[in-house]
Amino acid sequence: MKKYCLGIDIGGTSIKSGLFDRQGVLLEKWSIPTRIEENGKHIIGDIKDSTDRKLESLGLDPGQLSGAGVGVPGQVSRQGEVLFAENLGWYHVPLTEELTRQLGMPVRTENDANLAALGEMWKGSGSRCSNLLFVTLGTGIGCGIVADGRILTGAAGAAGEIGHIHIEDRMTEKCNCGKSGCLEQLASGTGLRRMGEWALASSNEPSLLREGEVSARTIFEAAAAGDSLAVRVAEQFGEYLGKALAICTCVLNPQAVLIGGGVSKAGEIVLDYIRKHYRKYAYPPCENTDFRLAALGGDAGIYGGARLMIEGGA
Amino acid sequence: MKKYCLGIDIGGTSIKSGLFDRQGVLLEKWSIPTRIEENGKHIIGDIKDSTDRKLESLGLDPGQLSGAGVGVPGQVSRQGEVLFAENLGWYHVPLTEELTRQLGMPVRTENDANLAALGEMWKGSGSRCSNLLFVTLGTGIGCGIVADGRILTGAAGAAGEIGHIHIEDRMTEKCNCGKSGCLEQLASGTGLRRMGEWALASSNEPSLLREGEVSARTIFEAAAAGDSLAVRVAEQFGEYLGKALAICTCVLNPQAVLIGGGVSKAGEIVLDYIRKHYRKYAYPPCENTDFRLAALGGDAGIYGGARLMIEGGA
Repeated sequence: MKKYCLGIDIGGTSIKSGLFDRQGVLLEKWSIPTRIEENGKHIIGDIKDSTDRKLESLGLDPGQLSGAGVGVPGQVSRQGEVLFAENLGWYHVPLTEELTRQLGMPVRTENDANLAALGEMWKGSGSRCSNLLFVTLGTGIGCGIVADGRILTGAAGAAGEIGHIHIEDRMTEKCNCGKSGCLEQLASGTGLRRMGEWALASSNEPSLLREGEVSARTIFEAAAAGDSLAVRVAEQFGEYLGKALAICTCVLNPQAVLIGGGVSKAGEIVLDYIRKHYRKYAYPPCENTDFRLAALGGDAGIYGGARLMIEGGA
Repeated sequence: MKKYCLGIDIGGTSIKSGLFDRQGVLLEKWSIPTRIEENGKHIIGDIKDSTDRKLESLGLDPGQLSGAGVGVPGQVSRQGEVLFAENLGWYHVPLTEELTRQLGMPVRTENDANLAALGEMWKGSGSRCSNLLFVTLGTGIGCGIVADGRILTGAAGAAGEIGHIHIEDRMTEKCNCGKSGCLEQLASGTGLRRMGEWALASSNEPSLLREGEVSARTIFEAAAAGDSLAVRVAEQFGEYLGKALAICTCVLNPQAVLIGGGVSKAGEIVLDYIRKHYRKYAYPPCENTDFRLAALGGDAGIYGGARLMIEGGA
């Protein structure tokens, strides 16, 4: 049984890596920029080079590692092929096969939100939960599901796409996915800003939000200060997300729902607005599902990557 | 490795049992009435007696069986305790423990809809799907989820309760669960009858449904005959169920959704109405999820019970 493993999280702007021991202690962390030009053709080579350099500087040999768990912002097949990862310009990239060869160690590839959910279960605010939902509220809405301690991927790696739950019949504007009325059009960071701007445009009511930037952060700050327009926006956010999560918990029955991503930086107030509306819609045996802020921030993915290799018995 | 196993499905009116070989061939099938009086205190003893009699008549000894997989219409804990099964009058019944002792063979207990899903995956219309959703449309709406070939139970056995997805804000009448606007209030057999009666009461429009009983069967028959009032009810049914299933597939990404229960006896027309509305709301990568009628009818549960014991390596 080998002592170390790697977690690698490929994002649209940077690639984060972490060297872990089997107990999940993060020993070293480093990152490199993501070169997305030319359909991301340099990414795999860049990962190889930076890994080789780091291992050499630490006096480690790839053979001493049990392997690397890799997260990708896209849909990943069961065979470890990236079906698509739009932000990287990748379509049908056999990442597991290619990286296994280049790194000279076993590799497993997963969707990044799924990996982050696994990381939060292992070392974050989901510890001691073998059934959880990890929701990231950022530009869009991502979600990873852990059921019975394992990532739920679905038939083609598309499970957990809760950002595309249809939640608003009255919305006509198209989502990236091609449909309209999707949860992430309204309850992501982008959605909060959109709802804030609608609220400002539809009245002359005074509001702290008229004084500067409209964002998830400023909306929750103004709501905390009692700004009634901001409170209405936050309530609407809680209504959309609470209703959607009530559906998710009656399908999945997790112990806990973890909220992460940029919007969660506003803190407990975000959970308060979600919980309030969640309870109206929740199936009673799931009413007391625990809502928690995620704990690992941007490191959740590399923790999950390491966990994936350890879990795999590597 | 033992040659036979049992599947037992405890329902509100009868208890069905099946003797299977390891390949899933149903060798014998029998049933007894469910005595629900006195909070169902006779049920376990009745199962023991009928099993003993049947095995004796076949010249089999309990020791020759790998065990019994048992389905219950209620919520079952991971330890095999029935937390509640209202139709049986059961609250906190340690069924696995008790039946293991009485039958003299290993027993595993599961929610009946979960077991039926497993049965359909094994020998029904879900064969070759390791990720599927099995939905029963009857008095209520039940659902079993199979993910990666295994039953998804959730943290406390409440996963798959899709009948309690909140789908209609305008509904004020209370559901059994205590909330209102639940899917099963509108898209179950009972819900179809309710919607049919509303449609009849709200107009004087002529309709075949004015001539007799209003039921799921008569509604789909009239819709097939072009009755415009019945078509509207069927469309509304498809809208509710299609929308809810679009959410379920974007959470779970199954290969197939199987539709069973009494309503499904109306045949392919039921799937047609669901599919039409499903496609409006589905996350595009899940748009082509296969909708199929379940194949095993009332035997799905006993097949699933047998499968559970074989899967468990018994």
